Amino acid sequence: MKSRERSERKPDKVYIYGKHALMEALVEAPHVLKKVFLAPEIGADVRAKLAAADIPAAELKAQEAAGLAGRDAVHQGVIAVMDPEKLMVPFEAFLSSLDLSKNPGLVILGEVQDPHNVGAIIRSAAAFGFAGVLIPEHNQAQITGTVVKTSAGMAFRIPLVRIGNVNHTLRALKEKGFWTYGLAMDGAKALADESFDTPIAFVVGNEGAGVREKTLETCDITLSIPMHGRTESLNAAVSAAIVCYAWSLKHPEALS
Amino acid sequence: MKSRERSERKPDKVYIYGKHALMEALVEAPHVLKKVFLAPEIGADVRAKLAAADIPAAELKAQEAAGLAGRDAVHQGVIAVMDPEKLMVPFEAFLSSLDLSKNPGLVILGEVQDPHNVGAIIRSAAAFGFAGVLIPEHNQAQITGTVVKTSAGMAFRIPLVRIGNVNHTLRALKEKGFWTYGLAMDGAKALADESFDTPIAFVVGNEGAGVREKTLETCDITLSIPMHGRTESLNAAVSAAIVCYAWSLKHPEALS
Repeated sequence: MKSRERSERKPDKVYIYGKHALMEALVEAPHVLKKVFLAPEIGADVRAKLAAADIPAAELKAQEAAGLAGRDAVHQGVIAVMDPEKLMVPFEAFLSSLDLSKNPGLVILGEVQDPHNVGAIIRSAAAFGFAGVLIPEHNQAQITGTVVKTSAGMAFRIPLVRIGNVNHTLRALKEKGFWTYGLAMDGAKALADESFDTPIAFVVGNEGAGVREKTLETCDITLSIPMHGRTESLNAAVSAAIVCYAWSLKHPEALS
Repeated sequence: MKSRERSERKPDKVYIYGKHALMEALVEAPHVLKKVFLAPEIGADVRAKLAAADIPAAELKAQEAAGLAGRDAVHQGVIAVMDPEKLMVPFEAFLSSLDLSKNPGLVILGEVQDPHNVGAIIRSAAAFGFAGVLIPEHNQAQITGTVVKTSAGMAFRIPLVRIGNVNHTLRALKEKGFWTYGLAMDGAKALADESFDTPIAFVVGNEGAGVREKTLETCDITLSIPMHGRTESLNAAVSAAIVCYAWSLKHPEALS
């Protein structure tokens, strides 16, 4: 999962491409759309939906399209401008919306740098019934067009929660009764042995360095995924998906 | 996991970049290296190792480096040319090398198109103790520099097996006593309920279309990964990794 996009700064606008992506955004999160550029051949149905949602449309000219989307992007005559910050839910509001008696699961991104990984993690968290993905303001890839695309639309369907510092957030969650987890090669407990019978939050670490030492110390439990000695580590999005899957096995009710 | 590289044709040479990747290849699979370009500043230790392995070295000039590696590639003065076909083991020889009494696991790539996914799947298969990754000649992304890089070196450490047609291969494996599996959204059996107490092979399908209908019919069992209704599917590399993980839980002995 490859990064060509440096995205640690919070962008104030993000482009999403293609009719399918636009329709997903319109259905799931119309408030994030600032403006949509449409090629002349795009039909009246799309234009009517934009008008109904009070989203400004503008004519997309071929030359501008190359400038906005890059020459290689497949946009099928539709380029939408969204405000990614409007996808984000504030932490306090999110936390008070959760029913802790249902033992929800949260994913915290801890310095994940590749937008493809961020998108894939959002997709897996949504697939396995997690209640939200927590995204720190700093040292963390932010929501971009690549993230939205790699998430296969799930960035619009699972709450994305804005947090400040990861360690502060872990402490706030622990006070609310969450158990907090970090993955480590030498983690104290094998993933499959954990029962996950409380509200939980787990931290996905950086692609190269893993979860920060200080963050691991803040976590209640370090988990390991047993693997063959020939391997040093798993891809960050892969290990996150495996944790999400293992959690979902103990929480079939979260899938419905 | 994004594809910029069309790689269905079998390339006869592939470039790998950087000293670390070269050293991995030298230790694990020196026979695949055809030639290595070294910048003047690369030290005598590397040159001596290449000479000892009888691999020709040539001077890397800055201008050529941009041509060979692309302007963005990080090559640190080392660009190695490898013959990816030499990484591949023939199917018959591989099959007769397996100890079937140990119930080995195999991954079969079935029209996976993105080299980042192919690399990630090789990495996961190696991590979870699989005996090999089977790669069809046609309609399948082949081994490229991107695959080697995304595999985090595992392309050199787990057997990569050349096969012809996926369905023929499945039938040959079934005759040898393998149980064969394909993932499907409406798969007959939940992944976690499968005991995997025979030799097994599972097929990873195409990113968009999944496992071909005919292939699913050829498989003994279709498996499903239960997920939330808001999600249509998982990333191909993610679902493969989850199958590998689930298999490894029943085969702790394969991890040592």
